[in-house]
Amino acid sequence: MSTGGEAAARAAPARNPSWPAAVDVYDTTLRDGSQLEGISLTVADKLRIAEQLDYLGVSFIEGGWPGANPKDDEFFARAGELTLATSELVAFGSTRRPKGRVDSDPTLARLAEAGTEIVCIVGKCWDYHVTEALRTTLDDGVAMVADSVAFLVAEGKRVLFDAEHFFDGHLRNREFSLRVIEAAAMAGAETVVLCDTNGGSLPPAVEAAVAEVADHVDCGVGIHVHNDTGCGVANALAAVRAGATQVQGTINGYGERVGNCDLVPIIANLELKMGIGALPSGRLERLTSVARHVAELVNIPLNPQQPYAGASAFAHKAGLHTSALSRRPDSYEHVSPALVGNGTRVLVSEMSGRSTLQMKAADLGIDIDGRVLGDVIDTLKRLEHAGYHFEAADASLELLMRGAAGWEQDFFRLESFRVSLDHRSGTGARAWNDVAVDVETEATVKIWVGDDRRTAVGEGNGPVNALDSALRSALNGQYPALDRITLTDFKVRVLDTQSGTGAITRVLIDSTDHRSSWTTIGVSTNIIEASWQALADSIVYGLLHAND
Amino acid sequence: MSTGGEAAARAAPARNPSWPAAVDVYDTTLRDGSQLEGISLTVADKLRIAEQLDYLGVSFIEGGWPGANPKDDEFFARAGELTLATSELVAFGSTRRPKGRVDSDPTLARLAEAGTEIVCIVGKCWDYHVTEALRTTLDDGVAMVADSVAFLVAEGKRVLFDAEHFFDGHLRNREFSLRVIEAAAMAGAETVVLCDTNGGSLPPAVEAAVAEVADHVDCGVGIHVHNDTGCGVANALAAVRAGATQVQGTINGYGERVGNCDLVPIIANLELKMGIGALPSGRLERLTSVARHVAELVNIPLNPQQPYAGASAFAHKAGLHTSALSRRPDSYEHVSPALVGNGTRVLVSEMSGRSTLQMKAADLGIDIDGRVLGDVIDTLKRLEHAGYHFEAADASLELLMRGAAGWEQDFFRLESFRVSLDHRSGTGARAWNDVAVDVETEATVKIWVGDDRRTAVGEGNGPVNALDSALRSALNGQYPALDRITLTDFKVRVLDTQSGTGAITRVLIDSTDHRSSWTTIGVSTNIIEASWQALADSIVYGLLHAND
Repeated sequence: MSTGGEAAARAAPARNPSWPAAVDVYDTTLRDGSQLEGISLTVADKLRIAEQLDYLGVSFIEGGWPGANPKDDEFFARAGELTLATSELVAFGSTRRPKGRVDSDPTLARLAEAGTEIVCIVGKCWDYHVTEALRTTLDDGVAMVADSVAFLVAEGKRVLFDAEHFFDGHLRNREFSLRVIEAAAMAGAETVVLCDTNGGSLPPAVEAAVAEVADHVDCGVGIHVHNDTGCGVANALAAVRAGATQVQGTINGYGERVGNCDLVPIIANLELKMGIGALPSGRLERLTSVARHVAELVNIPLNPQQPYAGASAFAHKAGLHTSALSRRPDSYEHVSPALVGNGTRVLVSEMSGRSTLQMKAADLGIDIDGRVLGDVIDTLKRLEHAGYHFEAADASLELLMRGAAGWEQDFFRLESFRVSLDHRSGTGARAWNDVAVDVETEATVKIWVGDDRRTAVGEGNGPVNALDSALRSALNGQYPALDRITLTDFKVRVLDTQSGTGAITRVLIDSTDHRSSWTTIGVSTNIIEASWQALADSIVYGLLHAND
Repeated sequence: MSTGGEAAARAAPARNPSWPAAVDVYDTTLRDGSQLEGISLTVADKLRIAEQLDYLGVSFIEGGWPGANPKDDEFFARAGELTLATSELVAFGSTRRPKGRVDSDPTLARLAEAGTEIVCIVGKCWDYHVTEALRTTLDDGVAMVADSVAFLVAEGKRVLFDAEHFFDGHLRNREFSLRVIEAAAMAGAETVVLCDTNGGSLPPAVEAAVAEVADHVDCGVGIHVHNDTGCGVANALAAVRAGATQVQGTINGYGERVGNCDLVPIIANLELKMGIGALPSGRLERLTSVARHVAELVNIPLNPQQPYAGASAFAHKAGLHTSALSRRPDSYEHVSPALVGNGTRVLVSEMSGRSTLQMKAADLGIDIDGRVLGDVIDTLKRLEHAGYHFEAADASLELLMRGAAGWEQDFFRLESFRVSLDHRSGTGARAWNDVAVDVETEATVKIWVGDDRRTAVGEGNGPVNALDSALRSALNGQYPALDRITLTDFKVRVLDTQSGTGAITRVLIDSTDHRSSWTTIGVSTNIIEASWQALADSIVYGLLHAND
């Protein structure tokens, strides 16, 4: 008898009946996540991340802390621009000040006015922090929580209570930590969220403490953990086994220090390994795309080793595994990658390269024979070795493949271009007080359109902008479709960090004609040359597809 | 009563008496770790990594698979170059072939000749893989393991048995998986290592299965897990709680797909959280340095979010936390970073309060009073809103703070600069075949050094390179220290992606004088202007600290 196979290995798990049937996913990428070193989100970034979270289908999106900084204020002021279909927006804040009054507390007033139905406030559960950080009595520590929850409930809010340092506090003064939790619950908090603020807990301790609280209070219990022991995901799951019905975390595990627990594997594990609902039906397959999109928005390359969503998560090196894998994928994959919107990748295999490219060519309607396909593969290998990365630049890949099949673009030919910048602000001091100093930037292009030689000058607030403007001016009137094509994003990565400013630079340009979007790539030791390549590809691609 | 404080928060934990007092750490970075996408180790790399592992003090270093590839053969041939003080080298291989004989099996012969006292062989424990992948009977599957272990024991080896797919097999055909384990133990394996080969298990399942095996066999039990559920660390710890006394993993969690379990947090958790010995006494504080050194050797930047050893692992950003942190570090750090050779870092950003900045100023020896501090905070908030990001650019922050306190740099004053690029390659076709096309890049700077006006021209393979070269040329001879200052990295981020090439650009430049490193920042709509700002700050900072 042999057991296993596709069906057995991938069957939906039976949920342990003592576990909750479903949990609410509470995302704090916009607040706690932005505490990660290197993350600095604009308000526009925050709005776009919120859209992604709603598209994924989390229950709650914590938008920020009204009053803490101008960005968070602007975010809540502009939250009306968002149309959230599945998620509810939450404003975050803290309890009233020590020995203060709730009706004159600025934080609570801001929360009451933030325009969200739900608010989450944080309060201290570790006696040591009450006496040493807040410098107040334990009784006032409890009253701060109770008063603040009651005030916000009276203001008509649904209130969540983040029990800061709960696990450290519970270990050291169990009675006080539980008094705080009880006070929040009795004052009307709909959920008390147990926080492992310093991130130092291990799963058995989390599981035991959550079980104790779940027995102790009538309201819901949530979990908020950080990954300082490398057990963030396991701690969140341990809490759910013990009865937690809300899981707070961040997409891709962003957050202060080593980060909050990563919602991506947590969601996948809950749904695929524990049989617990975490997203609306049909949303799980969006997980990889949302993880990658959010990584783009925070501008930190997604860790290829990220469980479930990483580029390497289902990548197999050639050999023992891949031959078995081709026969029975379940034999070397713990779940089917399609369930989370990811895919199997077989690495270092020229065979898979050929079939993938052949599929790609067929998709594009490019007629490519075996010999040309071999040339394309050789060219791709050489270019990727030199710093190109075509996975991210479909439009340039298409132009390359069309070129290999004999096509030549005839929209324009470049003769030369010239870019110059003059900085004349004349002060040696650092211009801290003026981000847009006086720099004159000018680009000249000389091109041929058929037999017609054209020259044009463009100005701009940067060299690429000036080049774009000069090229459009030179093409003036020739291609009406050009007016619809706009550049929407421009990304730069320096590849060989050993040689500083002399390194290879890779530029990606995103463009749109308001019907579709595409990405092009340029690579050069010179950032302006790399930008030109990506820019020219963008225009050519846009014109080529203008009548699709 | 207040509990907590330095002593309480950082006391060594009491070990649960049912847990092992110590475990053997078995590192497989050189074999399983090298399966990670993007890793390709030379033999010299492998030797140097082995030295690091021995310096850290792991019990076992798995060197590779003799006979599998020429690199592994060369590694074992050259292993005599290593002087290992604390670790033992292990050769890895597999059991005999299906229906084959041990005395004519090439893999076993290679293991017998590999020159290590200890060998580790892998065999299949999931019935499905025996019948489907090996295409043999279950009885032969058991005999393959028993025969091979017995053969190697008879050859005088200490034998470890890696039970491949143990957890998947145990779930589906418990009886067969235990037969294999028993056969290995009875044939003389000193440890049976239970492998979660596909990485799909969660801690409770691992703990239960390990406990069952530990009850079942007389030899030692080990654990070998992958991180596909994001629970690799927790799974290893769960196994130890259930009686495993050997933990297999890799430094920094390298390995196929998402990687093996990361030994760095596992070692720290065992020693600091569970009271279980994992390294020789006094070695734990080498953990961070070894993690970083190995990352250098495999040429993958260490994840700043890595628990315990990452650059951000003890970095604090929020004002709330840092004011408390300055009084009592244990209040916001789960362990003292010095225990693992890491350190606390305080990051400065718009979210920082006064206390963070005051700490920073004091660190730098800058005398800054209350009013100036308020100005600095306002300036920081304004600049960060405009796109600056100072936590990533310590050196620019220092210059800003010194400037606020009245200091003015007098190394040079800029009058003007000019950058020009001429692209004359003259072909309209995309230059796929030549990444470094012919572009002439020139920069002119006009500066004052005291009353001395200086002009210079620089060329480079990009605009920033040319500017750097012109500035150095203009400063020629004035500051000998300048020769030691080199730019090592250059990062560009476009901030408002709504406006494409007209967006705000943030440039970060990393520099070094080969004694220390620093990062500077520039922000402008113009990428060249932003680069100039960061470049000028870098040179000023380097000159300012030339005599430190």
